[in-house]
Parts: sequence; structure tokens; C-alpha cells
Amino acid sequence: MKAARLYQYDEHIGTEPLTLEEIEEPKIEDPLDVIVRIGGAGLCRTDLHVIEGQWAPLVGIELPYTPGHENAGWVHEVGSAVSNVEVGDAVIVHPHITCGLCRACRNGDDMHCVDPLFPGLDTDGGMAELLKTNARAVIKLPQGVEPQDVAAHADAGLTAYHAVKKAVPLLYPGTRTVVIGAGGLGHIGIQSLKALCSTEIIVLDRSEEALDVVKRLGADETVVADGSHVNKIMEMTDGNGAEVVLDFVGEMSAEKDGWNMTARAGSHFMIGYGGTVEVPTIDIISTERNIIGNLVGTYNDLAELMTLQAQGKVSLQTHAYSLDAVNDAVNDLNQGRMPGGRGILIPEGATA
Amino acid sequence: MKAARLYQYDEHIGTEPLTLEEIEEPKIEDPLDVIVRIGGAGLCRTDLHVIEGQWAPLVGIELPYTPGHENAGWVHEVGSAVSNVEVGDAVIVHPHITCGLCRACRNGDDMHCVDPLFPGLDTDGGMAELLKTNARAVIKLPQGVEPQDVAAHADAGLTAYHAVKKAVPLLYPGTRTVVIGAGGLGHIGIQSLKALCSTEIIVLDRSEEALDVVKRLGADETVVADGSHVNKIMEMTDGNGAEVVLDFVGEMSAEKDGWNMTARAGSHFMIGYGGTVEVPTIDIISTERNIIGNLVGTYNDLAELMTLQAQGKVSLQTHAYSLDAVNDAVNDLNQGRMPGGRGILIPEGATA
Amino acid sequence: MKAARLYQYDEHIGTEPLTLEEIEEPKIEDPLDVIVRIGGAGLCRTDLHVIEGQWAPLVGIELPYTPGHENAGWVHEVGSAVSNVEVGDAVIVHPHITCGLCRACRNGDDMHCVDPLFPGLDTDGGMAELLKTNARAVIKLPQGVEPQDVAAHADAGLTAYHAVKKAVPLLYPGTRTVVIGAGGLGHIGIQSLKALCSTEIIVLDRSEEALDVVKRLGADETVVADGSHVNKIMEMTDGNGAEVVLDFVGEMSAEKDGWNMTARAGSHFMIGYGGTVEVPTIDIISTERNIIGNLVGTYNDLAELMTLQAQGKVSLQTHAYSLDAVNDAVNDLNQGRMPGGRGILIPEGATA
Amino acid sequence: MKAARLYQYDEHIGTEPLTLEEIEEPKIEDPLDVIVRIGGAGLCRTDLHVIEGQWAPLVGIELPYTPGHENAGWVHEVGSAVSNVEVGDAVIVHPHITCGLCRACRNGDDMHCVDPLFPGLDTDGGMAELLKTNARAVIKLPQGVEPQDVAAHADAGLTAYHAVKKAVPLLYPGTRTVVIGAGGLGHIGIQSLKALCSTEIIVLDRSEEALDVVKRLGADETVVADGSHVNKIMEMTDGNGAEVVLDFVGEMSAEKDGWNMTARAGSHFMIGYGGTVEVPTIDIISTERNIIGNLVGTYNDLAELMTLQAQGKVSLQTHAYSLDAVNDAVNDLNQGRMPGGRGILIPEGATA
Repeated sequence: MKAARLYQYDEHIGTEPLTLEEIEEPKIEDPLDVIVRIGGAGLCRTDLHVIEGQWAPLVGIELPYTPGHENAGWVHEVGSAVSNVEVGDAVIVHPHITCGLCRACRNGDDMHCVDPLFPGLDTDGGMAELLKTNARAVIKLPQGVEPQDVAAHADAGLTAYHAVKKAVPLLYPGTRTVVIGAGGLGHIGIQSLKALCSTEIIVLDRSEEALDVVKRLGADETVVADGSHVNKIMEMTDGNGAEVVLDFVGEMSAEKDGWNMTARAGSHFMIGYGGTVEVPTIDIISTERNIIGNLVGTYNDLAELMTLQAQGKVSLQTHAYSLDAVNDAVNDLNQGRMPGGRGILIPEGATA
Repeated sequence: MKAARLYQYDEHIGTEPLTLEEIEEPKIEDPLDVIVRIGGAGLCRTDLHVIEGQWAPLVGIELPYTPGHENAGWVHEVGSAVSNVEVGDAVIVHPHITCGLCRACRNGDDMHCVDPLFPGLDTDGGMAELLKTNARAVIKLPQGVEPQDVAAHADAGLTAYHAVKKAVPLLYPGTRTVVIGAGGLGHIGIQSLKALCSTEIIVLDRSEEALDVVKRLGADETVVADGSHVNKIMEMTDGNGAEVVLDFVGEMSAEKDGWNMTARAGSHFMIGYGGTVEVPTIDIISTERNIIGNLVGTYNDLAELMTLQAQGKVSLQTHAYSLDAVNDAVNDLNQGRMPGGRGILIPEGATA
Repeated sequence: MKAARLYQYDEHIGTEPLTLEEIEEPKIEDPLDVIVRIGGAGLCRTDLHVIEGQWAPLVGIELPYTPGHENAGWVHEVGSAVSNVEVGDAVIVHPHITCGLCRACRNGDDMHCVDPLFPGLDTDGGMAELLKTNARAVIKLPQGVEPQDVAAHADAGLTAYHAVKKAVPLLYPGTRTVVIGAGGLGHIGIQSLKALCSTEIIVLDRSEEALDVVKRLGADETVVADGSHVNKIMEMTDGNGAEVVLDFVGEMSAEKDGWNMTARAGSHFMIGYGGTVEVPTIDIISTERNIIGNLVGTYNDLAELMTLQAQGKVSLQTHAYSLDAVNDAVNDLNQGRMPGGRGILIPEGATA
Repeated sequence: MKAARLYQYDEHIGTEPLTLEEIEEPKIEDPLDVIVRIGGAGLCRTDLHVIEGQWAPLVGIELPYTPGHENAGWVHEVGSAVSNVEVGDAVIVHPHITCGLCRACRNGDDMHCVDPLFPGLDTDGGMAELLKTNARAVIKLPQGVEPQDVAAHADAGLTAYHAVKKAVPLLYPGTRTVVIGAGGLGHIGIQSLKALCSTEIIVLDRSEEALDVVKRLGADETVVADGSHVNKIMEMTDGNGAEVVLDFVGEMSAEKDGWNMTARAGSHFMIGYGGTVEVPTIDIISTERNIIGNLVGTYNDLAELMTLQAQGKVSLQTHAYSLDAVNDAVNDLNQGRMPGGRGILIPEGATA
């Protein structure tokens, strides 16, 4: 089968970072294995970091291998013990292959499985015609939902939805939520907030264009990050700050601004990363504010997000590339040329 | 009446930091006012910081005034609208005078009242024969519980109990909790944990003597903070760390060690203060750990703590001083000479 | 002032059940008292039961007195300790006058205050020009919200919202909720569900006209209660039943049907009343289903509902009567002639 | 292998209800299968109902088969995909064999798996030398915990623990919990309450002897069910009733008394069964009380209970029978002659 392979890390991503080649098809080895024919594989900033080698020390995978951790498609082959999907089913693929037997798995906390695999990071991923995962990772798509339209939900959308779902119990009508970052995760975050509660949503971003887009997605207010934005948001919240800040940036001072816009007894949800939180403990205890970590999401979260997609309450902006054009897609993303929305790699002839 | 008054801030606490003098008795002015005859007023490190002037910029009170924010005694006089206590009732005094009408008060979050007073910090406190508070702050003591035995629960005990109560939903049997700091708050924290769940309790402190004491209070394991303690605790927890870290120190690298001992998906409860949290956002999100702020506690928390005291499940170690000896008490605390337990100031002749 | 007074219980409500007369104005007696100039008083089936004498043995009030427990208007006069409203403020009135000092009040559970008054049931209510309540019951209306438009939220809307809010944590995307009863409470229930979650809403009622209305309010599916309705709903839910049933009827076999439509591990929320629940304990334990009681709602619930009203997410259908026409209104309601929506009694000249 | 087989239902259990015979050993068929060598199989009233044929219409199993749903022992053989236990491990067996792939399984709600097996009820159980279950059902026993000492936790103990764990969030210090029934489940319920909270425990039973036993297990108060018991408990709770009633009986008017002893806003947890709940809806809504269903418990619940057992916080009273004496055990239980505690059937030579 055809696959996009990474042969060499390159801090300065070159023009041909990935090599398209024919490799052997994956085989069913474990009774719970599932092989998915890819209908779409999302391309994400994490893939750039993978190519740059930033993940190498963490995952210790041998090169070459196939990136791609946001996958959807159709079931191609199943192991003998697979009972939840059948060949031909359209599915989205949860990014973790989990054991199903540890305390975390038994509690639904899939991201905290003690023995996980993460295709695209520590084993072959979905920038290929076929992907091997397992029964615990595949979710049948609702009628009318197409793999290429939802592939990017498998990580980006799921991450945003998971954080929102954790925040919602704090968000009674009358609260304010600041969303930092009007990009791909922010889009899903805003739409998920709209679907799950009636908080007032204030979106903060450096780009006025990006803010224009989120107004159509449900943002109640938008604020340009121009240096005076913390003050503006404090004024908009009667000097109190927001009960919840969803920080989809987590670097370049967002991690600092987010904290400063969080109200007494409020919570700063960290989703983006790159920066460093630096807060005097007296500020934490004198206001009883929290900093909440967020990591991807659960299998059930992803199933719920597919329901919202089927209900028309969330949708992704995507831009399709053929798998053959994977290096164009990587370069477009790396050089800020991605035309509107998330790049999705689609193998030639991909269809149910 | 007699009161210990602060006339001057002194960064280097002198031998006579407070002045004992006769002042006018407080008067009922508001229909919900309650005047309490003090049976015991706890002395706390915060009082040292008050004397040093650290709180001056925050509270903006004019000198002289009366410190003392951990108070218990008997009801001396009540305003016309007070219906929950009667003259003569033994009571403990919640440290905040709250409005009862804002959203936080209506939700039981007394510490987040939008218009509070904090006797001993921003208005006259309990190092005196009488204290003015209001009906929303007084809790009748259960039969057999004496004011001087519980006064220090009004802030120190309440703070520890509140944090424990927030942590308990995370602490199923099989979890581990690290308690950093085997001092006064740690004592109540350990006893409260024992009363409210079956987590395994690991206590960390620099002092072996302090650790010997907490073994008798219910610590399952103790670890001396000798530089190798983070490693030791990671080994004791199978390399995972603890699901909950209750950090009663919050400075001198405890705030750093606490984070490093917190397990994936776990929570670092900040209760002590003085240091600065400094954590890369990637560490927060890749493990989904949380930092939880904690601030004193609610009126209902304090009532529950009184129940535990009456049940014999928690008790404070105290050392009684007469109110006249207030400066001895301050100096003993300041110079590390406090003989076992919390100093309690008792006005002459204090009795039901 | 003018007031509608009940002089005599009458099982068969006559044509002049209430007597309109001039009575003395209420006076501020307690420092937390608030007198509200009525802008609208909702008329409710409970008022019919009051007139019929059904509540007499429960509340033990002496006749004559003034009914009316769904009230909104403008602050007319305040006691000396009232700090949350000022004369002239537009307010809605929570139906309970609570003590603010018991455990329930301290926890926000206003309906479980140990010493409440319920104007319109056990003390003079709002079918008059002025109503006496207290500071703990009044909520300032958001800009643009008019008393007569929201008066019926004070009991009917609040009751529906409270039950929905308790149910929402169970209602992840993909769940189904059956709403039994497409009347006034059902309307608010459906709109509140839409505002707070993305469950699929199935509404059940005997009246096709009523079902047509709720389709416009957000019902995803409607089912006529024609005898085959339990089977129909079981089919619509793949044989599982609904995760939540909100039973706004609670009699005439709704209480039985509701249970039979509740899924394994699901909850039957009882809001309406009149019938009797009769369920074998084996059915309860073998499916782990719950029956959940619901009683009016909290002060904070009502404040949140006012936010939803201001956001345009919930609205009441009302029909205005002048207070002078109170007996016409009672008769219209009693004889099923109320033209579309809730009757609201408005004193002559009522205005800010 | 040797097994106790049921060949015929008998409403009036005869002297030889089960037939001891040699049957073929179970075989690994599915990659997640686990075969356990039985160390102890608990005998339970449900087994009597099985023999009587009460379960026949529900489970539709063909006779003969092997009862026994409370099992513990040592791993004897594992399928190719089993990674959580090894041959020789001491284990307790969760009573359900679950799919691991449905929403309920993915959420930790094992009892609500859409495709479960229940050995001893709808497939061969543990009154034999070997039992076939799967990897998702086996829990390794903590060091020092012996299979025969914990077998009865697999259903009876787990059921009690699960209900207690659901109740604990309601049970702050100062609450009261009524435990109806001082038998086997009640014992674990009381000990679990002691381990997980500080509620005051009031135990109700018909037998003074049974009440004497539970005093040693942690009951704070005991009440003989003599007809005046509801009144007595109302007096003991200041006329309020208990915040939680754990009803381990659920028949013979316990289901009625339990409701009548439940406080406003409180919850009646139904665990026992046999009777019928009959409550006017007005009583449910006017007090906002709940009826909570409870069904066995989750895998993680059982693991937690094993931790409490290892900590010495819960223990079962048991009476050992050899498997060969299974009919004696059945008859002793059926005729009320079981000598103190739960009957445990132990195959000859059962040992690690």
C-alpha cells in the first residue's frame, strides 16, 4: 500500500519531509486488531513537531515510520474477537490504542491507560491507505457523517470537546468563558460550548480575520489581543474576570494572560502548550483559583462529538489534499499557507 | 474591656509588639450583629505577618486595632434579627462576616462573598474580651466541646478540612495522598482524611519529631524531607506519584516537590503559600494534572469539623496563654519556642 | 391598597371566588423586609387548589388572605438591613422567604429552609398592589426584562428549570429525554433543556395542538399519548427507553408510563403530582433506575433562569388580566378557557 | 472435574437439590477467556431462588448447569490476549463477564454492559473445581488476602459497597444513615460506611442478636424493628429522618418504613428486593426525596473493596463447607441453620 514515511528528523522542515512509497499492508495479529482503510487523515501542528524531531526523545520510535494521528475511514479487516464493528463500517479512530484492563481504562479515562499505543507518534499512523488500530479505538459514524469531514476531530476536535465537557459543570447561565485562540481547536471549543451550556463566550485572538469567523460560530464577544486585552476583558466582566478560561494557546504569554483573566474561584483550563506557568502560591490560595490540565479525550467523548457533528452543531473547516500531495500540505501548514481550515490527506480512490 | 492592640508595624517583631489596654466594648449596630465573649483566640503565623505589616497594603486598616482571627467563646449580646443563637450559647466564629445576599453566599461559598469583613485582619479581632461578628458567622458548639479547645479550628483547622473535603471525591481506596507539612494544619488534614476516606496517607516533613507525632494521628507512612524525598515517594507509589498532594507548605521548594510527586490525572492542592509555582504547560497537559487553590472554608465546613471534634475524630494540640501574656505568646511563636501545639489566648476569667 | 382576598374555601369554585377590596398596606417590620409593588402576579392551578381548600390543612392560614405566589414588580420600600436592592429596582420574587441561617440556606438549598414562609400559601401573596417579602427573595431583573413577562417564572418556570438543571449532568449528546406534558412547565423545561445540553427531546402529550406548539420551542420529536405511546417511545429509543424522563404530569398514569419509559440506569424525574408511584423493588434494583423528587428551585436557579430569559432562550406565553378581573381569570383557568398561556394579573397603573 | 449441578427446579427445595458429578473441564475458546481454579464459592439466597426456579424465566438457561456466582480462586489458564493476570495469581471474580466495548463498559458501568454473561445464573458458575470467566472479570488479590475469605464479596460485598459508595457524597459529618438489615450485606455496608465517611450509623433489624454483632462492626446506634421503630428513629433524628436510608431488605414493609424514615431532600437507597414501593407523587415532590436503585457494582468497586479487606477495614463472617457438602450448605441456608456468616463452598484440596 501507499504510505507517507518519515526517514529523517529535520529541525528546519525541508521541501520533501516525507517520502511517499509502497510498503507492506498491516496484518491482523491480535484478536482485537482492526485495520481501517483511511478516508481522511488530519494534518496537525503536532505532525510538524514530529518531523522536527521534538517527539523523538519521548516516543523512541525507529525511523522510517508513518505519521498521522487523526484518522477516519472504513473498516477493512477485523480480528477474531472484534464485535463492535464490521467490515465496511465507516469509523473515526480514537487516537489511543488502549489495553481495556487497567484501572484507567475500566473508568473510561482512556488517555491514562497504563499501556497505550499512539499511532502516528509511537507506531505507524494514518498517512497511508491502511491503518492498524484495535476494536477499542473505533467508533461507528452516525448515518450521513463522512470520514474525511471528521478525521480532524480524532485529535483536535476531541481535545477541545474534552476540555469543554470538563468545564461545563462550572458554567451556569450568567457566567463568562474566555476562549483564547480562534484556530481549529478554538472553533470546536466554541461550538461545543454553545451545544452544552449557555455561558457567555468571549474569544481572544491576535487576528481580526479569525475573530470574524468565530462570530459566526457562536462567539458572543471578540477581543483582539493587542496588549490591552486583559484590561478589556476585565472591564467586560465587571472587574471579576471569567469563571472559566479555555486556553488553546498556552504559550507566548497566553498562559499568563489566561490566569490574570480568571475570576476568583475560577479555573484556567490549559489545553495549548509551549509556555511556562509562573504563579505565586499566594495568588492561587488567596483567590482559590485552579489550573486544570487537559489531555485529548475519552472514547465516549469522541462518540458524543460525533453526535454533535451529526446534529449539525459542530463542524470542521477542512481543506482536502490527496495523499500524494502530502509534502505540499506539510509545507502549506509550516509556512502558514494552509487555505482556510485543517488539511486532510485523502488516499486516491478513498470511498466506502 | 481589655484588648491586645497593634499600634505599629514592625518588620523585625520586637518584644512588645502588641499593647494591652482597656478599650470601649463593641456595640450592636446592625440587626444581625452578634457580640461574642472570647473563650479562646488562636495565635497563628498570619498574626506574625500582620504585625510585620505584610497585610497592611492588602487590608488598609488604620492602626491601632485588635488582631485575632481564630475565635471561639460564648454569645454575649445579639442584634434584633438574630435567630440562630442565644445569649450564653458556646460558639465558634467563622472567620468571615459575610453579606448572605450575593451569589457566592447563596451558594455556600462564604469565602467568596463580594462584601466580606475579616475580623483580626481588616477590622477588630478576638485578642480581646469581646468580639463583634454577625449571625452568619457563629456556629453553636456541640455538647461537650469547649471554646478554648477549638478556637484554632476557626481558621487553621477549617482551612485543612476544606482542602481535604475537596480532595476526598478523588480518594477511593487504593489511592495515595501525600501530606506536605506535619504542623498544625497537617494534623487536622491527616485526621480529616482518616475520618472521610481510606486513602493511604504519606506525610512529608523536615522534622523527625513532627513525623513521630503524625504517626499517632493516622499517617500510614512518613518520609523525612532530606533531599531524596521525591525519589522515595515515587518509589513508594510504584513510580506513579500520589493521586492527591496536599501541600500545607507552598514554599521552600515544597510547591515544586509537590507537583513532581503528583500522579498523572492527579491534583496538587495548594494550601500553604510563599513560593512560586513554575511549571511548563507541556507538563500540565501531557499528564492532565491540576493545581487546585484552597482558601479557608465554608460555614458548613466548619460545622462539620465541629462534629468531627465532638466525635473525637479530630483534636488540636494547644498551649494556653492568658490574654495578658499575649506578647510572650507572640515571641514564643516568632522564635520557634511555642511548646507543643497552637497558642491560645484566654482572657482572664473566661468561662460560660 | 387593592387586593384579591379569599374569604371562603369552595370545593366547587364559584363565579366570585375572590373578593377585591381595599386593605391596609404591608409595613416594613424586620430589617430585611422588602415591599414589592406588583407588576404581575401569575395565576396557577395551585391557586385553584388553594381556593378549593386543598392546601388548608397543610398551611393553616386564617381567612381572609391574599393568594398569589408568582410575583414580580418593583421595589417599593426596604428594611434597614437590605443591601441587595434599592427602591425602584425591577425584581422577580423567589416564592420562599427563607431564614438564611440554617444548614439548607447556607448550602443554597432554599426550598429546604427549616423556617420558611410561602406568600400566597401561608401568608399574604401577590394578587394585590403590594407584596411583603424579604431581601433573600428578591432578584434584580436584567436590563430589558419586564416584571409582567416573567412573573410566572417565579414558581412554574423555576420548578421546570430546577428539575432540568438536576438532570443535565446525565444528558450527554446521544441521550434521549422524554418530557411528559407540553403545558406551561413543559414549555420552560424544553427551552431549558435546549439551552443547557444537546439531548434529543421527545415530548409526550394528549393534545396534538400542544405538541405543535412545542415543536417550535425545540422538541425534536413529539408523541401523542393515545395508549400506544409507551411502545412508540420504546421503539424510538431502540427498545432502551430514555436516560431521563421529566414527568410534569405525575398523575393519570403518567407516573406509571414515565417509569416504563426510563432506561436502565436512568432517572424518572417527578415534577407533577396527583398520582401514586407503585413499583416492585425488583424492578428498581434489577435495572438500577431512580425516582428523583423535585421541588420548586433555588434563588440561584431563578437568577439563572432570568439570564436565559434576557438571552432570549426561554420565554413564557402569557395572557394579561387586570387585577380587577381576577375572578374572570380564575374562572377562565378553572373552565379551561384561558386563551393561550399563563394568566397574569396586573394591578391598574402598574409601571416602573 | 467435580461440579454441583442443578438438574431440576424445585419450588420446595428438597434435601438433594444439587447433584455432585464429574463433568468436562471448561476450555479456553476466546482470547480473553480466563479459567479460575475455585478457592471458594459463596452461597447466597439468590442460589435458593435459582433452585426454586424463580430466575428460570429471566435467564432461560438449559438444565443441568452449575450455580455459583460469588467466586474467588487462582488463575488456572488464560487465553492468548490476557495481559492482566498470570497463571497462579490469586483472584476474585467480578460476577459479570462484560464486552468491554459498549458505552456502559467504556464508562466503567460494568453492570449495564449490553451483552453480559452472569456465571451461576445464565452460564456455568463456580460451585465446581474450575470456572470459566474472562480477563475483564478477574481482579488480583492484594498480598495476604485469601480467596475463600473474600469469595462472598464478589456479589454480596460488592453490592453493599457499591450502594455505600454512591451514598457517600451525601454523607457529610453530622448526617445520619439508617441501615435496614443487619445481615451479610448490612455488615459490609456498615464497615464500608465507617471506612468512607463519618456519618452516624443507625442499624435496624428484627433480631437483637444481629444488632449485637453490628455494634462491634461500627454501628453507632441500633434499633429493634418492633413496630415502633419508625417513630424511634424519627425521634433519634430530631423528627427529620435520615439523610440516607440503605435498605438491604426491600420487602416485608422495610421498603415502606425506609421511605418514611428518609429526611427531606434525602435518598432511600433500594438494595434488597421483594416488596413494592407505593408512594404518592405529592410525597415525592413536596419533600424532594429520591428513591435510588442499586445493582451489584463495578469492577473498580470490587478492586476498592479488596483494598479495604487488605487494610483490615472490612471482613466477612464465613462458614466453610467442602464442595462435596453443597447440599448440606443449601439446606442449612434454606432452613435458617447456617452457623454464623456466609456459607463458602471449598473444593477438596483447593490451595494456591
